Amino acid sequence: MASIAVCPGSFDPITNGHLDIIQRGAKIFDKVYVVVLSNSSKTPLFSVEERKELICEVTKHLPNVEVDSYNGLLVDYAREIKANAILRGLRAVSDFEYEMRITSMNKVLNDELETFFMMTNSQYSFLSSSVVKEVAKYHADISDLVPPVVEEALREKNGKIE
Amino acid sequence: MASIAVCPGSFDPITNGHLDIIQRGAKIFDKVYVVVLSNSSKTPLFSVEERKELICEVTKHLPNVEVDSYNGLLVDYAREIKANAILRGLRAVSDFEYEMRITSMNKVLNDELETFFMMTNSQYSFLSSSVVKEVAKYHADISDLVPPVVEEALREKNGKIE
Amino acid sequence: MASIAVCPGSFDPITNGHLDIIQRGAKIFDKVYVVVLSNSSKTPLFSVEERKELICEVTKHLPNVEVDSYNGLLVDYAREIKANAILRGLRAVSDFEYEMRITSMNKVLNDELETFFMMTNSQYSFLSSSVVKEVAKYHADISDLVPPVVEEALREKNGKIE
Amino acid sequence: MASIAVCPGSFDPITNGHLDIIQRGAKIFDKVYVVVLSNSSKTPLFSVEERKELICEVTKHLPNVEVDSYNGLLVDYAREIKANAILRGLRAVSDFEYEMRITSMNKVLNDELETFFMMTNSQYSFLSSSVVKEVAKYHADISDLVPPVVEEALREKNGKIE
Amino acid sequence: MASIAVCPGSFDPITNGHLDIIQRGAKIFDKVYVVVLSNSSKTPLFSVEERKELICEVTKHLPNVEVDSYNGLLVDYAREIKANAILRGLRAVSDFEYEMRITSMNKVLNDELETFFMMTNSQYSFLSSSVVKEVAKYHADISDLVPPVVEEALREKNGKIE
Amino acid sequence: MASIAVCPGSFDPITNGHLDIIQRGAKIFDKVYVVVLSNSSKTPLFSVEERKELICEVTKHLPNVEVDSYNGLLVDYAREIKANAILRGLRAVSDFEYEMRITSMNKVLNDELETFFMMTNSQYSFLSSSVVKEVAKYHADISDLVPPVVEEALREKNGKIE
Repeated sequence: MASIAVCPGSFDPITNGHLDIIQRGAKIFDKVYVVVLSNSSKTPLFSVEERKELICEVTKHLPNVEVDSYNGLLVDYAREIKANAILRGLRAVSDFEYEMRITSMNKVLNDELETFFMMTNSQYSFLSSSVVKEVAKYHADISDLVPPVVEEALREKNGKIE
Repeated sequence: MASIAVCPGSFDPITNGHLDIIQRGAKIFDKVYVVVLSNSSKTPLFSVEERKELICEVTKHLPNVEVDSYNGLLVDYAREIKANAILRGLRAVSDFEYEMRITSMNKVLNDELETFFMMTNSQYSFLSSSVVKEVAKYHADISDLVPPVVEEALREKNGKIE
Repeated sequence: MASIAVCPGSFDPITNGHLDIIQRGAKIFDKVYVVVLSNSSKTPLFSVEERKELICEVTKHLPNVEVDSYNGLLVDYAREIKANAILRGLRAVSDFEYEMRITSMNKVLNDELETFFMMTNSQYSFLSSSVVKEVAKYHADISDLVPPVVEEALREKNGKIE
Repeated sequence: MASIAVCPGSFDPITNGHLDIIQRGAKIFDKVYVVVLSNSSKTPLFSVEERKELICEVTKHLPNVEVDSYNGLLVDYAREIKANAILRGLRAVSDFEYEMRITSMNKVLNDELETFFMMTNSQYSFLSSSVVKEVAKYHADISDLVPPVVEEALREKNGKIE
Repeated sequence: MASIAVCPGSFDPITNGHLDIIQRGAKIFDKVYVVVLSNSSKTPLFSVEERKELICEVTKHLPNVEVDSYNGLLVDYAREIKANAILRGLRAVSDFEYEMRITSMNKVLNDELETFFMMTNSQYSFLSSSVVKEVAKYHADISDLVPPVVEEALREKNGKIE
Repeated sequence: MASIAVCPGSFDPITNGHLDIIQRGAKIFDKVYVVVLSNSSKTPLFSVEERKELICEVTKHLPNVEVDSYNGLLVDYAREIKANAILRGLRAVSDFEYEMRITSMNKVLNDELETFFMMTNSQYSFLSSSVVKEVAKYHADISDLVPPVVEEALREKNGKIE
């Protein structure tokens, strides 16, 4: 049976930390769907379309990675694309607790879907989309934190806002 | 490329918690090697051979699971059998921190080997081989905690000790 | 002296996890007051009256449980009803830290009031009112998560919203 | 129904932190059994009898506190004395995880027995019998950490050892 | 070389917990800049000017403490005043994780700036500006939580609001 | 007043993680005493003298670092050398809790002595002397984990053991 994983997130925008998890997961799973979940209540900086484009751009060297978006429950999306696994990155203890709740909830909703976690590379353990957006606002150098195309997209957004 | 995972542990003895992780992992990975690491400093209750036999017995319905033992570094074992993944269960925050250190260390020793974690089913979140051995010593009912063959093996050990 | 406990919360709405704590607490304390604290800044899904009605309904088999609501500091409510204990459920490490702060603060405000914690049953360790509301929004099956009367109330709310 | 709690531990020796929990628990429970569990694998500084005597001495002002010892599983002891509750102190996150495992295990062994936790007073949050023994060895002032009778007992032990 | 530390925060308002860290830090560092960061998205109770005045008032006995405010990244402020250290208080595990992320991020932005942490005195481990504002709203006694001048300032604010 | 810090540990042997903390601390404190505490109950791999020699060798480029050893309580050593600070590295949440207890205990024993923590560089967050000794035993490459002189000392020890 093929192993098909969903890698869900807000990706607002995708960071080097996300990319690291996607690349390492793509070495093991036959197929990895990176899916932008759009039902969050927070106001995003990038539209769902922009976020998908940025992910496509930075994962185009990974032939078994597909990019998608979804408005609804992750377990319903996984069922639609016949995924048998969820792939998530873990940075810290607080991530762990949050993920443990989500995983338990998803298990109640769909017992066949297994969640796999990978530890984020220690050099990205502090990294999040929010941190990137915060420091980009003050024109700090973010070239170690995001791929070049995301760096540029952030510069454009901040230019428009000012 | 085939996905080959190593699931390492002391397994002294294997519990329903371990078995749950092995079964769920075997649905995703092409092959899972359950390997008894014998270099621990602690005095085990069961010999390496006994531990392997118990694991073989309780995983015999899983065709893509192989049981083995090793004395040395996990990364060296993984290299020998050409594994590209390590599979580990996570029960709690304390597990998480311990595993994060081991994972980071293994990454320094072999950058190609990826570690995947699964959350232990909540009904087994308190379970460990030590807890099982402790309560078995006092003849408590452990039929929900270990497979029947392990229950019997523990009864025999405790009978001999008394 | 009678042991009188207050079990405070938002209960928006009450879940099987809350109910589990209330039932187990009611076996030990002479009287348990379940009190809806209404001073939260978040916009609730259910009004205070609706929340109290749902709690009354699902605890009606527990003769020593009383349902109430309060707008103010918990220590002031406890003083009014002459409670000598606060009863809280603990699900996870993050709960623990939050509760430790609240408990320390309450101790400064009223040194006579003791807080008792019970570990949430592991099958409900991921459960919260927010999780229930989130999945109910997408018509997922929540019959294992909340009592039937709450399930129906959620269905009605979601029907109205759509 | 009377509320009967067991407060188990090694108490090698009892500290002001233990005493704080016992005193506060004795205000709520009808009866509190403080029980020295003697099945630990560690070599104690004080014999079970000495530990019981010290606890008796420092709790003699609490009429509803009884002191006892037991060699076996806590759930079996609780059944013998018809206790319906276990009382434990929580100092820190690491305590919490350990206790969560023990509580879940005890729940499997006896579903009727409820465990209640109290947060240790913040001034004793660092305190443990081991810390007390360590600093007493170097003749540091421990009068804020243990009752006077325990301070003297430690001085005697250390005098004999030198 | 002189040791110059920045102690950043919202200080809305300064509590006894903050003051404890500042006083203890001022014993070691040659100079401590207490800086109100004004770029938070939360609506503050006190204006930046009011917060600075309160800090000045309660630190006026510390000759090597300077009070300032800044809108921007902490690393940029530190560079401006030639600070070589950041000073932060740690209350709990959740603080620790948050601080670890901020520290790692700041290290990426300025590798020369070292962050030093002090453990908050255990009697203030639950204390935060939010807790103080919450209980002050209900006219609870906060004289153990904040300096007298802050107590009065809170009373005035709450008087105006009512 | 000069700022004098003690940096205590077992240093069995010193790793790149320890060295990182010592170097960064030496930029802020006027003097840093690195002190090998010899009262641990564990059997060390290196003698106190060997450990001191290795630390001297790898810190010889730091003029304000002194190396010493002590058998007794850290607070007594600090008093002897008139230190006003303790310097410690923090790697993870588990470190944090352990350190919080030690710090609180030291504060009871000597209220004038302040403990400062630095976060270990993320690339060393998994690193400990035990991990180094474990992997060195199996001839793994440890050149990223310890200074060359320690690598050689470990090789010699392991040669002798075999």
